[in-house]
Amino acid sequence: MSFHRRMRSFAPDQIQITDEFWSTWHKTLSMAALPHQFQQLVDSGRIANFERVWGANGGTFEGYRFNDSDVYKWQEATAYALKNVDNPKLREQFELTVDVVERTQMADGYVNSYIQNGRLEDRLRNLNALHELYCLGHLIEAGVAAKIYLGHDRLYRIAVRAADFVCDVFGPDKRLGFCGHEEIELALIKLSSCSADNKYRELAHWMIEKRGQRPSIFDAELKDERALSLSPLSAKLMKSTTGYSGEYAQDHAPIREHDAVVGHAVRAMYLYIAATDLADGKNDEELELALTRCWDSLTSKRMYITGGIGPSGENEGFTHDFDLPNSTAYAETCAAIGLAIWGHRMLEQTENADYADTMERAFYNGALSGISLDGTGYFYDNPLESRGNNKRTPWFGCACCPPNIARLIASVGQYAFGISDRSFYIHMPIGAVAKAKIAGQDVKFTLTGTYPWNGTFSLEVNLEEPTSFEVCVRIPEWADEVATEIAGASEEADYRSGYAVFDRTWRDGDVLQVDLEMEPKWIEANPLVRDDIGRVALTRGPLVFCAEEHDLGYAPQLLSVDTEAEPEIGPSKAFPNARSLNVEGEALVADPADSLYMPAGSTSTRATSAAMIPYYLWNNRGPNNMQVWLRQR
Amino acid sequence: MSFHRRMRSFAPDQIQITDEFWSTWHKTLSMAALPHQFQQLVDSGRIANFERVWGANGGTFEGYRFNDSDVYKWQEATAYALKNVDNPKLREQFELTVDVVERTQMADGYVNSYIQNGRLEDRLRNLNALHELYCLGHLIEAGVAAKIYLGHDRLYRIAVRAADFVCDVFGPDKRLGFCGHEEIELALIKLSSCSADNKYRELAHWMIEKRGQRPSIFDAELKDERALSLSPLSAKLMKSTTGYSGEYAQDHAPIREHDAVVGHAVRAMYLYIAATDLADGKNDEELELALTRCWDSLTSKRMYITGGIGPSGENEGFTHDFDLPNSTAYAETCAAIGLAIWGHRMLEQTENADYADTMERAFYNGALSGISLDGTGYFYDNPLESRGNNKRTPWFGCACCPPNIARLIASVGQYAFGISDRSFYIHMPIGAVAKAKIAGQDVKFTLTGTYPWNGTFSLEVNLEEPTSFEVCVRIPEWADEVATEIAGASEEADYRSGYAVFDRTWRDGDVLQVDLEMEPKWIEANPLVRDDIGRVALTRGPLVFCAEEHDLGYAPQLLSVDTEAEPEIGPSKAFPNARSLNVEGEALVADPADSLYMPAGSTSTRATSAAMIPYYLWNNRGPNNMQVWLRQR
Repeated sequence: MSFHRRMRSFAPDQIQITDEFWSTWHKTLSMAALPHQFQQLVDSGRIANFERVWGANGGTFEGYRFNDSDVYKWQEATAYALKNVDNPKLREQFELTVDVVERTQMADGYVNSYIQNGRLEDRLRNLNALHELYCLGHLIEAGVAAKIYLGHDRLYRIAVRAADFVCDVFGPDKRLGFCGHEEIELALIKLSSCSADNKYRELAHWMIEKRGQRPSIFDAELKDERALSLSPLSAKLMKSTTGYSGEYAQDHAPIREHDAVVGHAVRAMYLYIAATDLADGKNDEELELALTRCWDSLTSKRMYITGGIGPSGENEGFTHDFDLPNSTAYAETCAAIGLAIWGHRMLEQTENADYADTMERAFYNGALSGISLDGTGYFYDNPLESRGNNKRTPWFGCACCPPNIARLIASVGQYAFGISDRSFYIHMPIGAVAKAKIAGQDVKFTLTGTYPWNGTFSLEVNLEEPTSFEVCVRIPEWADEVATEIAGASEEADYRSGYAVFDRTWRDGDVLQVDLEMEPKWIEANPLVRDDIGRVALTRGPLVFCAEEHDLGYAPQLLSVDTEAEPEIGPSKAFPNARSLNVEGEALVADPADSLYMPAGSTSTRATSAAMIPYYLWNNRGPNNMQVWLRQR
Repeated sequence: MSFHRRMRSFAPDQIQITDEFWSTWHKTLSMAALPHQFQQLVDSGRIANFERVWGANGGTFEGYRFNDSDVYKWQEATAYALKNVDNPKLREQFELTVDVVERTQMADGYVNSYIQNGRLEDRLRNLNALHELYCLGHLIEAGVAAKIYLGHDRLYRIAVRAADFVCDVFGPDKRLGFCGHEEIELALIKLSSCSADNKYRELAHWMIEKRGQRPSIFDAELKDERALSLSPLSAKLMKSTTGYSGEYAQDHAPIREHDAVVGHAVRAMYLYIAATDLADGKNDEELELALTRCWDSLTSKRMYITGGIGPSGENEGFTHDFDLPNSTAYAETCAAIGLAIWGHRMLEQTENADYADTMERAFYNGALSGISLDGTGYFYDNPLESRGNNKRTPWFGCACCPPNIARLIASVGQYAFGISDRSFYIHMPIGAVAKAKIAGQDVKFTLTGTYPWNGTFSLEVNLEEPTSFEVCVRIPEWADEVATEIAGASEEADYRSGYAVFDRTWRDGDVLQVDLEMEPKWIEANPLVRDDIGRVALTRGPLVFCAEEHDLGYAPQLLSVDTEAEPEIGPSKAFPNARSLNVEGEALVADPADSLYMPAGSTSTRATSAAMIPYYLWNNRGPNNMQVWLRQR
């Protein structure tokens, strides 16, 4: 144990993503997804909400009270995306959003178009439900991204003013308070790292430690009818036992006492992301144990094979251990994103590749499924079975997911690699050129491969002087065999917490070849997951596969697969850049004219083979029957 | 086709139920269930709601706006029950409820404690949501039951006054109107049969034909804010497209155009019960076709194997064909009751035993599961799988089910047998003594058997003069072999629409022996029922069986059964009067310490045998894992 930062991500100008898989996504973001989302921000009144504060139609507000956050998250995603693939039109749209936010921000740094449109005297009156600090958190993240990725000082200064406002109001000897929906904490930590001013980080620390203490700060708000009236929709939820306070908002107990992840899934992830950063270098065993306990319980009892988390739509979150229904899975896109980010934070603090396994699982499956290939169709919930009733949509009333998946994809380079004084980490071997100073030397790393379709890749090292440092390659849990070779050299790797570590003197032009065996694997779930009993899921490398009626010609629910037959890998007919797996099995013959109930054995079956596609690609051809967990023959 | 009444039920003083199965239930009703329910009526304020109209605390009303109906349904059940098994204390309670209703009824016959407590000027202002006519319908049913079963004129006169009020207000040349929740129609028909005054029947007919016409009578109510304010809880639902008008309340189309059963399940059943009665003798082919179409679609595409109907809690009703999820099945007790009653009405009109098959299915499974063995624990929804989260409760805020199942059980004799000029029908061979005049002779029928545990029974016929008439014995769909014998005689039966018909000259002391083969049967569902794919259900005779963790020692979800092995019938250890079936199979070994996801084949299994109990008995030993549809090996 002992959390301390073992690595950092690459600065934006030190890394360039070159592989086909992610470069294609980056083009889609800059050229299609983010312009599309901008239009949605305009059409849904999210931009107008700001304008009304100081322009015409003052005092009216459209949509959910936390809608400002979608603008900020879009700004953050756009800052990353423009660094990857420029688009002058998108840059203009970005500037426009900065203009409206700047003009709306009050002199003291506060900004919230819901409150500023006619509810100003009640600002910060209902921290539980109104999401004001949540929105400011996203503004701060946007500002930090704008500064680091685009050198955009204007949005950064807005963000600093907002953060200073929060510091002015809250803290020891000031008002005791934090937001019902965590976010401000992780944002303040980011700002401390960027600004080198530790006060933001200290406030985040204080907010996290105060959360879950008794009496809850939300108790008074529950008795304040005026506070409740500010958010009529959530007043009922707030008053319920599982409502906005308690487990739903992780306010049930101090974080050090947590032993399972509960309540609203996205809130929980954002809390633990911040808490993990805060544990850095403190030798705070109690907090480290709590975080490790929660992580282990989450990933060993409450996580879909896709990295989706939070099975229930009722609380957008967790229920009980092993409750992972497939067709009704909520598994919100934002929650999988949160899991990936928390995994990354745990990885940075521990250098344990297990965390990267889960991060990768969420990245390539449960998060990426949230966006269509063309960038304009989204999923809020990501079920593992569909009966044809799921449909990607261009936007949502509560639109947290679209800009969130955009910012994750756009910043994949932050998650794929790590760097420290004398180590270069490959967490996910995606094609990239990365530059860093290691052991005093400027080194350029060039990773070339075709991940996630193949596990073979090469890493070329370029530097002036031969230098001794480590290259650490994560050995994924799914790779049973790993072959490594350095041209003309014979060094064996050491293995350290899931990484193959090549600690040697690297010379210019050295090439490390890695072959992670990427065999199709049939997986079964612990039988305590009732919905997966008698079923298997197919994986290959980081990808979970699924069967769609589009490919089968019949509902995959009718299929039972033969796990003895080796699935065959091949190019996907439907998706030119992807691979599909062909499996053998038999399919029941269904006829609506047959009796509803018949003697067992009445139904006939036929031998069949079926092409399965990566889960993240599902529903790109419209609604249909889909299954991840197939019946096993 | 051509609906006309082929038979009638026995008058209460002509029949006595003697078999152990139903007699035990009848004792439970009179001695435990109905006294318990009376106490609940008192404790929940349902009696006080009436008293407040003319007593202290005037103007206040507790609970749901349709709570009066629970009192009336309890009265109806109690009238039947007291005829079966007297209980002076229960009779006193009955009189008390008649007193309060009598004192509350207005001079014009109207009575409704929700409206009369301070909302009188708005009476009949919101027919859609307020259930006033629904409540009056249940009052009328109670009055008819009280007169016929107890000779209780006082409640009957109250009912007649209520019905006359409805006739005074609604009808051709009067106000166009009917209730959002059907019930008044079938009640008016009952009253016409009892009173021999056809005006009630004619009003029911008119209401049913007006339903679904355009413009809907509910349209005006949807625009009347004051009407909506009378039922704030349902105003939102009323305004929604699937709300109180449209499919939810079967107001989407005239009944003659219906081709599937949609919307709220109980409402739909009550509508079709009345409509089937109204089709009697009219040669109305259009209506007969519509009813037959709806029945066939319902029972061949939308019915659980238990006779439960209406899979969704959202609308308490129907979704789409073959959508029959197990663990989330709503399958309201009242809906199965409604299905049983509708089946009985269709049977009376057609003499087709298929309808009796479904009636019996609902009676012994999906309806009876709604009450605990001791009579004081109820289910509103009747899922076919439980993960341990279902619990019987003593009462409900919306308490339609407890008195409803009581009145069905108490009146089982009405459903088990039929009589016509020269035919005696055995629909369900339960032990009974029945007397009737057939072909001019007084005949006594004594049925002796141990149904539903065995399919063998004897029918002794006693009469003075040898007389020629038919005894018609339903051959259930589940009986592959049927043996019949009349001592000392050799007549073969004819078969007519599912009945074995013994048309002969019966002499005093003749005994008909029947043996309906009652083998355990493994049943599979049409694969279009996605949730049952790869699964089998076990039936024996009219009973559907289930596996409970109480008996298995492990969750039945872990079990896969061997359908090649013959299930063994034996006495149930848990329920002394019942039989259980012992099945062979194998069980997965589940360990919470195992990985959440493992290579296929990691989990071990062990051979096992498992005792399965009749579904209606489930959850009599507290919550636990339960399954009807078991995985097939």
